Amino acid sequence: MKDLKKAALQYHRGGKIAISSKVKMETREELSLAYTPGVAFPCLEIASNKEDAYLYTSKANTIAVITDGTAVLGLGDIGPQAAMPVMEGKCLLFKKFAGIDAIPICLNTKDPDEIVKTVQMIAPSFGGINLEDISFPRCVDIEKRLDASLDIPIFHDDQHGTAIVTCAALINACKLVGKPLPSLRVVMSGLGAAGSSIAKMMKGMGVRTINAFNRSGIVSRLKQNRTAVQDLLDEGAIDSFDDLSDDTLAGLIKNSDVFVGVSVADVLTPAMVNSMNEQAIVFALANPNPEINIEEIKKTKAAVYATGRSDYPNQINNVLAFPGIFKGVMATPHRKITQKICVAAAYAIASLISKDELSPEYIIPSVFNNKVVDAVCEAVINTRDE
Amino acid sequence: MKDLKKAALQYHRGGKIAISSKVKMETREELSLAYTPGVAFPCLEIASNKEDAYLYTSKANTIAVITDGTAVLGLGDIGPQAAMPVMEGKCLLFKKFAGIDAIPICLNTKDPDEIVKTVQMIAPSFGGINLEDISFPRCVDIEKRLDASLDIPIFHDDQHGTAIVTCAALINACKLVGKPLPSLRVVMSGLGAAGSSIAKMMKGMGVRTINAFNRSGIVSRLKQNRTAVQDLLDEGAIDSFDDLSDDTLAGLIKNSDVFVGVSVADVLTPAMVNSMNEQAIVFALANPNPEINIEEIKKTKAAVYATGRSDYPNQINNVLAFPGIFKGVMATPHRKITQKICVAAAYAIASLISKDELSPEYIIPSVFNNKVVDAVCEAVINTRDE
Repeated sequence: MKDLKKAALQYHRGGKIAISSKVKMETREELSLAYTPGVAFPCLEIASNKEDAYLYTSKANTIAVITDGTAVLGLGDIGPQAAMPVMEGKCLLFKKFAGIDAIPICLNTKDPDEIVKTVQMIAPSFGGINLEDISFPRCVDIEKRLDASLDIPIFHDDQHGTAIVTCAALINACKLVGKPLPSLRVVMSGLGAAGSSIAKMMKGMGVRTINAFNRSGIVSRLKQNRTAVQDLLDEGAIDSFDDLSDDTLAGLIKNSDVFVGVSVADVLTPAMVNSMNEQAIVFALANPNPEINIEEIKKTKAAVYATGRSDYPNQINNVLAFPGIFKGVMATPHRKITQKICVAAAYAIASLISKDELSPEYIIPSVFNNKVVDAVCEAVINTRDE
Repeated sequence: MKDLKKAALQYHRGGKIAISSKVKMETREELSLAYTPGVAFPCLEIASNKEDAYLYTSKANTIAVITDGTAVLGLGDIGPQAAMPVMEGKCLLFKKFAGIDAIPICLNTKDPDEIVKTVQMIAPSFGGINLEDISFPRCVDIEKRLDASLDIPIFHDDQHGTAIVTCAALINACKLVGKPLPSLRVVMSGLGAAGSSIAKMMKGMGVRTINAFNRSGIVSRLKQNRTAVQDLLDEGAIDSFDDLSDDTLAGLIKNSDVFVGVSVADVLTPAMVNSMNEQAIVFALANPNPEINIEEIKKTKAAVYATGRSDYPNQINNVLAFPGIFKGVMATPHRKITQKICVAAAYAIASLISKDELSPEYIIPSVFNNKVVDAVCEAVINTRDE
């Protein structure tokens, strides 16, 4: 770990991203095209038709990666300056996997109104907005307001990126254990940015019963004072669980088919897994330490498991989703990222593993599988907007 | 001109700038340095000491080029989308001449409060702010408020970039005609962003008398309702001219030593130039057509002239100033761009032409003179802050 720290700090010296030129600008003639007087011509074209910004500027291929630094990785509210290395890393991933030019913008505010306003103000330069590491539930409202007010795609990766990849893994896990999605009873641990979006998406894909457990215990209509969760109950994303005789995860998880943890380390015990239905599916996605120790889970009745870790099989990694999602929607100016697009992306990712290849150790493609981005992109492009 | 339009539009297809990587990110190991888990280490360093953002992120070498699209080149208020090609061009110039990574941010507002607020919000990602093509007098107030509230250098190039290069040319023109700066009577035409900054800077360099003419005629304390100009009179940047018997440029320019035009084409006649003192200096900087036709000026008593054009001698071009200014101030985090720094830059640019080389056709270095940036940078670094 000391070596990793040393290597990581050395690796980050001077930052990770730079601006480069897409054009030649060496001679006086080229200078007069790039700047005055030549630059006036594209300016005038755009002034008479704003859409030409997609043609004559970098807008069509450029997004902003925006954070307020309130929910950075597993580090929490470390502020905008400290969030910068993560945002630069994200920008590198956008470039490497999707060829998209992404610019890190770390905001000097945590106020949702100021965040929304600032993004609205800087939007003309960008063809899309990736919100990143903004804490729940603020992130949901911020994303909704931006999506409603701007004419470019908005995507909060911590919500929907994680949801897409989790759902892709669920699709393949269900194939493997032979249970159709509508038949599942899912139990979730954690209802933050990722959890709430995973629940909504699973419902959109046909899952009928999702119960949840969070810091306040089992999610139930019988309880008061659960504001952030209230919306999820009202929308039907989470189903109320009303037997509160044992208000613990152990009490909730019995006779369920799927566990999805996006919470904290060590909340799930082998005994709880063994109380699930046969052919149990366990996704323990807390980072860096999952809800249950991976060596322990191997001894349970779980038929298949996935984690967020790169050193075990079935890594749920957002990088499988966001590059292809943006590459796909940005192929057409102004396209929005809908639930339908996210579901299509999940099925596209799942479909990259054939029936023959499918195994408990292989339900989700590797982040280095170079077919993923194009498969997601194509699925997005082929999805008809509502 | 048709050919230039065609070439310029072709040149701009797809935009001019992109994001590139400063690090290698090919293997799983490199990925784990650039992103999780390695990225957490620089994040934590910065969380415990914000200054480390200059060490472990791109902030130290990255600026935002910010506009509201209200005063773009000679095109006026064409809006943020249409301003984008100019901002991208500026970013290319920053990269080419100073190695600085500049990011174009075009704002969806003209409201000074919103502009100031937005820049304050996005500032954590940037080591400096270059304001561009924001209309006068809003630009002066916006720059002042940002300079007072942010801990990074702020520079409105249309004001100070033009002023630095104009003053550099004036230094050399004075050497050429043998008149010391304090002895000059300067007459200005135009008191916008560039004009007001040129006046202030000339005063800072020792010029004693500057009179001015603008849309409302001769600038004088005897007149009412000249709000934008009032500040310049109060600060002593412009001297009141109180003989209003002939309230024209012709009436003002008689017996002056220097004409500085940052206004519009064709306001200066050969007769006016000939009414100036001997060894007259004429800077006709309106773009693309100067205040007096260049072929006509050659027939007057002007000893030396300069314009904004690249096809005539002595081009006053901001690119001589802003790359070195930013390269110099950004060598030290948080340094501000003061008047003292601007004056030092002007003298550094002027000094690149030796006494032997100095001639009426050569008072200012070419934009392709590769000594300029380093000379300005060095002068900035060696200037002691007040």
